[in-house]
Amino acid sequence: MRLSRYFLPVVKETPADAQIVSHKLMLRAGLIRQTAAGIYAWLPLGYRVLRKIEQIVREEQDKAGAVELLMPTIQPAELWRQSGRYDAYGPEMLRFPDRKGTEMLYGPTNEEMITQIFLGSVKSYRDLPRTLYHIQWKFRDEVRPRFGIMRGREFLMKDAYSFDLDEAGLKASYEAMFVAYLRTFARMGLQAVPVRAPTGPIGGDLSHEFHILADTGESALFYDAALEDVSREELLSADAATIAKLTGLYAMEEEEHAKVAECPVPAERLRSRRGIEVGHIFAFGTKYTKSMGLSVQAADGSQVHPRMGSYGIGVSRLMGAIIEAGHDEAGIVWPEAVAPFQVGLVNMRADDANCAAAADEIYGHLNSAEIETLYDDRDERGGAKFATMDLIGLPWQLILGPRGLEKGTVELKQRATGEREELSIESALARLTG
Amino acid sequence: MRLSRYFLPVVKETPADAQIVSHKLMLRAGLIRQTAAGIYAWLPLGYRVLRKIEQIVREEQDKAGAVELLMPTIQPAELWRQSGRYDAYGPEMLRFPDRKGTEMLYGPTNEEMITQIFLGSVKSYRDLPRTLYHIQWKFRDEVRPRFGIMRGREFLMKDAYSFDLDEAGLKASYEAMFVAYLRTFARMGLQAVPVRAPTGPIGGDLSHEFHILADTGESALFYDAALEDVSREELLSADAATIAKLTGLYAMEEEEHAKVAECPVPAERLRSRRGIEVGHIFAFGTKYTKSMGLSVQAADGSQVHPRMGSYGIGVSRLMGAIIEAGHDEAGIVWPEAVAPFQVGLVNMRADDANCAAAADEIYGHLNSAEIETLYDDRDERGGAKFATMDLIGLPWQLILGPRGLEKGTVELKQRATGEREELSIESALARLTG
Repeated sequence: MRLSRYFLPVVKETPADAQIVSHKLMLRAGLIRQTAAGIYAWLPLGYRVLRKIEQIVREEQDKAGAVELLMPTIQPAELWRQSGRYDAYGPEMLRFPDRKGTEMLYGPTNEEMITQIFLGSVKSYRDLPRTLYHIQWKFRDEVRPRFGIMRGREFLMKDAYSFDLDEAGLKASYEAMFVAYLRTFARMGLQAVPVRAPTGPIGGDLSHEFHILADTGESALFYDAALEDVSREELLSADAATIAKLTGLYAMEEEEHAKVAECPVPAERLRSRRGIEVGHIFAFGTKYTKSMGLSVQAADGSQVHPRMGSYGIGVSRLMGAIIEAGHDEAGIVWPEAVAPFQVGLVNMRADDANCAAAADEIYGHLNSAEIETLYDDRDERGGAKFATMDLIGLPWQLILGPRGLEKGTVELKQRATGEREELSIESALARLTG
Repeated sequence: MRLSRYFLPVVKETPADAQIVSHKLMLRAGLIRQTAAGIYAWLPLGYRVLRKIEQIVREEQDKAGAVELLMPTIQPAELWRQSGRYDAYGPEMLRFPDRKGTEMLYGPTNEEMITQIFLGSVKSYRDLPRTLYHIQWKFRDEVRPRFGIMRGREFLMKDAYSFDLDEAGLKASYEAMFVAYLRTFARMGLQAVPVRAPTGPIGGDLSHEFHILADTGESALFYDAALEDVSREELLSADAATIAKLTGLYAMEEEEHAKVAECPVPAERLRSRRGIEVGHIFAFGTKYTKSMGLSVQAADGSQVHPRMGSYGIGVSRLMGAIIEAGHDEAGIVWPEAVAPFQVGLVNMRADDANCAAAADEIYGHLNSAEIETLYDDRDERGGAKFATMDLIGLPWQLILGPRGLEKGTVELKQRATGEREELSIESALARLTG
């Protein structure tokens, strides 16, 4: 993509109303634009990242056997009356009548709707187990929206719902999602800690929150150092022993940790770090299937209420967490897996015909090799171009100027380390496309 | 995907409340489920098709140079007061106060919001021209939602907005979208007719509707037969002469055609067919940039209000139009480009170990070759499996039973023609993967 034809409104000044670093950087780097309190438009660069995060979440849900559908944003209040949650849910639920006076709401979550869909479709134990998920915009009318998209009102969530015949099945579905979550975050280059969570009013006895470690995180966590040592390979094999180990390792939020009389983790293995919650999973059993009258015929002919679990990932929130976990003084440092482009190609002298021709040629090579490249072909000062590239945090910068070009060299800079190398054009291309 | 682990609630009976064939077939084939009047959940099979349609639309927008972003569904009423449309828009706009009493609405379209975003980002003629688009859910509170997703209330739309310095630029942006639309529909295997449209209250003097030809279409069209002869190659080259020819060819809705004193098309070249509107483009000029105070500095230092156009495609509606244009007595006939899977693999005897082993192996080969396959591995009667496959309309059916297997053969059926061929397993796989 040529920057001269793109839409990347970067901002030099630090926005006055942004309190946390991810919010500041997302505004400055032209990723988002506020359109109302707690509501944001995703500008082109930000939307590219959002779609990459979404796609990783999707692929890991699919690999775990979950099936994707899409439920609408607007729901009838009647559904929530059936489960008893319409009155229980507070003013965070955005409610309104439609033109005929029917009470509607903007869905903050979908347990009721998925149960209704299942109710109209599944009659027999042979159709179980099933886990269905969707990735859809939700609305929660926060009384004090803040921290940009981290605590916004309209946000993108992946929510999955499992249906099983019995408790053993529910446990297996829960564990499959548990591992899928760890894989999802690992693919994004993040260290995630699954924290045992109090289940609260949603009921059931099994629940974990997933926190991304970041020094600027909102929660203080205490956990067994063994959780940091889980390898990608262990997650991919994910046998029963691995899962038992992972779900069993000690990890608590500060408040819960303080209540523990004797911490089971020896002091030298107890880690304390800050984290940002980006996922939450629950096994809650028959709460909705009972209240909404969903039962299936078991193998013995009896009617059984399926056991349910629900599994959420804050897809848009993840982008904030990724930036909190990966930035420096100069700007964002994207992990390769979610970077909007892999390479930023900088022509230092767009007004020099030789430079422009060479940069155009390099751009053509990178495109042919399907390397996602943002090509700064604008007639701007080199310093401004560097600052923009560092701010938007693409993993690699390929810099071309008249002096290097005379020698046939370009500079390759790795954003994360700041390392720069002078290379022949061929070597630089080989490095990026290899 | 194994059908035994999928979620495909097909319905035998024709739904009583569905009046048109696409609505009936979408309900019967388990593509959608109504969750409130005019509001639908997209079940897994339907959502696969929707995503394919969306992706074709996206790719053709990108090729035309448009840049994707995503604007939120909920907008502040204040924005629409600035343009003067808040009061002009009727009860189809879903309006509500948030918890603080701020007047909000569910966006039916985004001219105001994109103008506001542009206003905060672009100062100079050097940043023009630009066309931005998004693919987002919209809500229009129809007084009588009907015809399934063809006239629903929550629907998916691609809307693009172009900004140009002058009228010549606007014309060029308009023509780029015009051609992109024809390419988009051609890639989906559809015959589209661009109909000159009255511009109405949105203003401006250039507007086209795009209709998909279908015998069951809602509108009667009269057009020059030359419009049917535009080849894919002509659309891909899309030089000035082609565009001038295409935008100039005669095509009118019946009502407008009736007003024409003397039709310029000779009788033998005048076609009359029915169509379904799936796209609408407008060049409207400075309506929003003036009312909302967007101006940029021109090369001569003066301030200029950019000229705008807007360009919509009903992405979810397209699915209905594709089914209206492609179905028979037995069910849907998907064009390959949007089919949810390319192949339906039918094991006639899931209870036969040899058949199951052979079908599993074929399924493995198709997966390795990345052929999207829906594998009916359920223990059901062959007749029911055939009926389901015809109903859901995958382009190819690969049928395996005990008698053929003894000879090493399978049956390959093309859904569109009904042609069946007995082939060796190897030949059948070669045909599908080749």
